[in-house]
Amino acid sequence: METTNYTVTGMTCGHCAGSVRTEVAKLDGVTDISIDVPTGRLTVTSSAPLAAAAVLGAVEEAGYAASPA
Amino acid sequence: METTNYTVTGMTCGHCAGSVRTEVAKLDGVTDISIDVPTGRLTVTSSAPLAAAAVLGAVEEAGYAASPA
Repeated sequence: METTNYTVTGMTCGHCAGSVRTEVAKLDGVTDISIDVPTGRLTVTSSAPLAAAAVLGAVEEAGYAASPA
Repeated sequence: METTNYTVTGMTCGHCAGSVRTEVAKLDGVTDISIDVPTGRLTVTSSAPLAAAAVLGAVEEAGYAASPA
């Protein structure tokens, strides 16, 4: 298991978190996703290491910007 | 055509507005819905007068509170 943290900017509510969750969940190997809206903290757990670019791309797909934390 | 304004509290983003729109659109006779997230202004146009309680109930169904404006 690999766990990586990212900081997502622009999320304001649970719907925003839901959009991010939906996109990140599409990535191969993701087993758990935790999102804290106030801080923008996104924690992704996966069965194998995930390319950060893939996670950042998924967050962008949801309409937000992210960076490794 | 009847147009009525309401003030919705708690919407923070376009997803929130979308949720309110979806619920209000289910009401019989609604022909147009306009939502301004920053001010919370919800404008509902309908082919016949709508009971305010129905609109307020729809907004509540979406997870927000509203009052006639």
